[in-house]
Amino acid sequence: MPVYKAPLRDMKFLLNEVFDYPGHYATLTSGENATPDIVDAILGECGKFCEEVLSPLYLSGDEEGCKLDNGEVTTPAGYRDAYQQYAMGGWQGLSAPEEYGGQGLPASMGLLKQEMMGTANWPFSMYPGLSLGAMNTIFLHGTEDQKQTYLAPLTEGHWAGTMCLTEPQCGTDLGQVKTKAEPQVDGSYRLTGTKIFISSGDHDLTENIVHIVLARLPDAPKGTRGISLFIVPKFLPDSNGDVGERNGVVCGSLEKKMGIKASATCVLNFDGATGFLIGPENEGLNCMFTFMNTARIGTAIQGVGPAELSYQWALTYAKDRRSMRALSGKKEPDQVADSLIHHADVRRMLLTQKAIAEGGRAMLYYAARLADHMVEGFTEGDDKKAEKYDDKLGFLTPILKGFLTELGCEAANLGVQVFGGHGYIREHGMEQIVRDTRIATLYEGTTGIQALDLLGRKVLLMTQGGAVREFTLNIANFARKHLTDKRLRPWALELLKLTGQWNLLTVRIMLAARKDRDVVSSASYDFLMYSGYVTMAYIWLRQAAVAVDKLDNGGEESTGFYQAKLATTEFYFERLLPRAQSHATSMLSPSKNLMQLDAEDLAFTG
Amino acid sequence: MPVYKAPLRDMKFLLNEVFDYPGHYATLTSGENATPDIVDAILGECGKFCEEVLSPLYLSGDEEGCKLDNGEVTTPAGYRDAYQQYAMGGWQGLSAPEEYGGQGLPASMGLLKQEMMGTANWPFSMYPGLSLGAMNTIFLHGTEDQKQTYLAPLTEGHWAGTMCLTEPQCGTDLGQVKTKAEPQVDGSYRLTGTKIFISSGDHDLTENIVHIVLARLPDAPKGTRGISLFIVPKFLPDSNGDVGERNGVVCGSLEKKMGIKASATCVLNFDGATGFLIGPENEGLNCMFTFMNTARIGTAIQGVGPAELSYQWALTYAKDRRSMRALSGKKEPDQVADSLIHHADVRRMLLTQKAIAEGGRAMLYYAARLADHMVEGFTEGDDKKAEKYDDKLGFLTPILKGFLTELGCEAANLGVQVFGGHGYIREHGMEQIVRDTRIATLYEGTTGIQALDLLGRKVLLMTQGGAVREFTLNIANFARKHLTDKRLRPWALELLKLTGQWNLLTVRIMLAARKDRDVVSSASYDFLMYSGYVTMAYIWLRQAAVAVDKLDNGGEESTGFYQAKLATTEFYFERLLPRAQSHATSMLSPSKNLMQLDAEDLAFTG
Repeated sequence: MPVYKAPLRDMKFLLNEVFDYPGHYATLTSGENATPDIVDAILGECGKFCEEVLSPLYLSGDEEGCKLDNGEVTTPAGYRDAYQQYAMGGWQGLSAPEEYGGQGLPASMGLLKQEMMGTANWPFSMYPGLSLGAMNTIFLHGTEDQKQTYLAPLTEGHWAGTMCLTEPQCGTDLGQVKTKAEPQVDGSYRLTGTKIFISSGDHDLTENIVHIVLARLPDAPKGTRGISLFIVPKFLPDSNGDVGERNGVVCGSLEKKMGIKASATCVLNFDGATGFLIGPENEGLNCMFTFMNTARIGTAIQGVGPAELSYQWALTYAKDRRSMRALSGKKEPDQVADSLIHHADVRRMLLTQKAIAEGGRAMLYYAARLADHMVEGFTEGDDKKAEKYDDKLGFLTPILKGFLTELGCEAANLGVQVFGGHGYIREHGMEQIVRDTRIATLYEGTTGIQALDLLGRKVLLMTQGGAVREFTLNIANFARKHLTDKRLRPWALELLKLTGQWNLLTVRIMLAARKDRDVVSSASYDFLMYSGYVTMAYIWLRQAAVAVDKLDNGGEESTGFYQAKLATTEFYFERLLPRAQSHATSMLSPSKNLMQLDAEDLAFTG
Repeated sequence: MPVYKAPLRDMKFLLNEVFDYPGHYATLTSGENATPDIVDAILGECGKFCEEVLSPLYLSGDEEGCKLDNGEVTTPAGYRDAYQQYAMGGWQGLSAPEEYGGQGLPASMGLLKQEMMGTANWPFSMYPGLSLGAMNTIFLHGTEDQKQTYLAPLTEGHWAGTMCLTEPQCGTDLGQVKTKAEPQVDGSYRLTGTKIFISSGDHDLTENIVHIVLARLPDAPKGTRGISLFIVPKFLPDSNGDVGERNGVVCGSLEKKMGIKASATCVLNFDGATGFLIGPENEGLNCMFTFMNTARIGTAIQGVGPAELSYQWALTYAKDRRSMRALSGKKEPDQVADSLIHHADVRRMLLTQKAIAEGGRAMLYYAARLADHMVEGFTEGDDKKAEKYDDKLGFLTPILKGFLTELGCEAANLGVQVFGGHGYIREHGMEQIVRDTRIATLYEGTTGIQALDLLGRKVLLMTQGGAVREFTLNIANFARKHLTDKRLRPWALELLKLTGQWNLLTVRIMLAARKDRDVVSSASYDFLMYSGYVTMAYIWLRQAAVAVDKLDNGGEESTGFYQAKLATTEFYFERLLPRAQSHATSMLSPSKNLMQLDAEDLAFTG
């Protein structure tokens, strides 16, 4: 099994050459310390940690899994040590405010870190990932006292966090939440209920775990408007803020899952557990979802990371393994057969992985700039700025989460395919990447939910198509600038055509939905995928434009990297982008072809 | 977890209404006993066995897996009993010649049986499935003595069989096979070497296992022309044909796999094992591949069965689980939320599964008629007939195997998706179907190999496009007949357009390949998938034509079944078939976008 290598060259290409992060950071308060040298040093250190500490635990963690004994969860061998190194390195607080022990760097730096960690070892990265969710929630909605008590140890990584939403009867439809919170005379609450699918719900990595829990107050309105948010620590902090009394929240069982086996997925039983209200009563869902865009982009990383990992390993295998002769004649006549890499169809699979991994990474970096502005708006209390960038990010979020995780699964499966039968054997790790990645299209809102969020909410309800108009205007302006270069012209033209089509599709769906509400759902998945392919095309053109410039004006540097960017852009436009057209056709087809059948007539097993 | 229900209604629809199997069987010698009543009774019995015996072992078999102890493999609890019932029921010999203990029914009956067994419990069905491969090989190439000794107990199911091709250094590229066979004075051979990925390589279901092994004679020519075929029994038969001395072939280890865990995948060590030549020296590969089309269609079943199973379970869940409200208004106002089935996007997933399962089944039944003729040709020694139908089947085989297993994986993944997060949890079985199905695009020739076989061999090399011309002529003739019915007309027109396009694409690739051999490989995958979508469209139109006829002239029978066929045809043409166009675009793109990059420039990890 090859090891993970952090793709630092590609990351720096995106940061410095494509998206001008140095210029971007110069406009941010949090960017003051994010000078190119510091960013370089951080990426290098993080890459080293991922390569040397996290990557070697990837397969063994899956093999061993987590164990539950007497209500206490043990993580696989090596996880505690790795987490200690992670916490000691100050990585958890990389993008957290300095006043609570963080390093105060821009949010985007945290995403870059998450991408590398998630690529090297996704299941491990979920523990600190969930803590981030808790940190964000407390930072935005907690009292100063709550921040001092919980946010500081979370930021230092001494404590970990969770998000407790799902219950047996509901995941997506949180209006059905039943967990009860009864007010006590001391101002605290007693929480009773069962939460399921709680990632990092219990573990041995930290001395305490801070659960952020959705529950209902007595007499709360039904549905989503009667849900409040609570902090429920595993151990109640004592007056010094140290770990005190054990609280009434216990892991009842660990889910047996397809993958991410080193990540503890818990059933948590709240049995009169002491909790503390966070944010206003009955507005828990809003509070929980404040940072949903960043959480979902955190999950979108799972589309990119595993694609990168699977690609790295498949590429190595394709260079080593010999089978048959290339159709265009022997490439390695002295060998018993040619390497897989000489077969065009194997290259099709590898380039698909590459286009997804690098195109997806570029989409993340594009979105991360918006996240920086949004977070700065929140941090500075500039609601208008926060809202503006949250809206921009909100349009991209379902595209990134929905589209990239679907393509991540495809890339991981292609990695197995390159290995042939060996891909199906556990020791090579390729099938593990498939199993681990498969969760990505399910949690943090399934692909179907992302699709509805994009088309139903962001595009139709909130902006009447305006979100598409605004985004495609950017794309079209960029494409127009590159019509004159003969290498870029065909792609720029194609992209211009697609921006027009995207708007037209939006209008046609909007009109159809006025007469038939089911159209919104029936078109949503194809609209999401179409949007993803066009967005990725834009992002590949941006990379290609830089590559052309460097090749023309570069000088000494090796040209292979830039040639590869052009070749991958060409591959993407010619072999993957055509899929957008089949989605365009499907999304315009009548909802009747989905809705006309009675449920009883769907199956005939008699 | 819901149980498997044999889709007998759909099977009978295909047999009796769409493909006129009664008429077809009337033309076959082996069809004499396959009267509609007998066929009905057999399907009913087989369905019952699959529902009551095999289906309940599906999840437990995965949980427990196979065990290796002292070189002996133990199958999961219940497997031995189930296999005993299977053998006692005479199922193994259903389509085998009566002279060796079989029931002499047409080959297609065996495929129907395999489909039901493979749907209820794919890993179990692999044990008898591998035996079939050994039976076919011995039947076609064995001496009369070998047939009496080995074929009879295999046909009765007292013994099982395997096919030993793959070695550590080669799977696809069998010219690299190294296992040695040294002739002995008694006319036998001593085999030495290592075979890997041997399904059913060892187990406790039968008293003996008959390995069919590829190996090299001393001084055999290099490559594929120096490979011979041997029978190597686990226990050497004594003079009565009973189990005698233990032979030198031992299971060295069991592979740990992504799925099909109840199927023993063995490393087999041949250590001077006694073997018997079967067929002519150095023609082993030809002998092994005589029945490859049927073996590959056996694997194509894995595209259909798991799609059916995953669909059945997902449909049940979608009717039970309540989440959110339908966009077109409350459907179940008295309930806390509407069932999933009322959401258009959930229906998109379910109908995709249904279209794949039923469309795939119909493709199998279409091909199975050709298999009947081919087998009859072989059995009667009518080489011309055998060859004619082998060619027809040979064109369809890579389409069925390659396309249907790819779509089977998609269907299984959609089943997980319908379940949301619950799909990822092992107890529901949905993720197991994904893991079990994933092997289907890898073994018996990967999708890439099927694609090359179709485009490179069957279409270009062997027939210069003639195979496509012949097949599309059938399709076009059928479509033309149905232009007058206004329900069928749009689909018939679309299909006519596609038959023209398919031929045009073939010609364009043929011309391009004359200048650039890589085109064959670079276009192959998209050509395969395109061919699959068009073939499935044809097969849906055939079903729709019957449905229209029955709705117009049927009378008393429930119309729901036929309405569902029309609705699924409509869904297929409007939502899935558009994908063919993106494959058409991709396949015509230049091979340059795959081949231009140096292998070293593919990755930049520094």
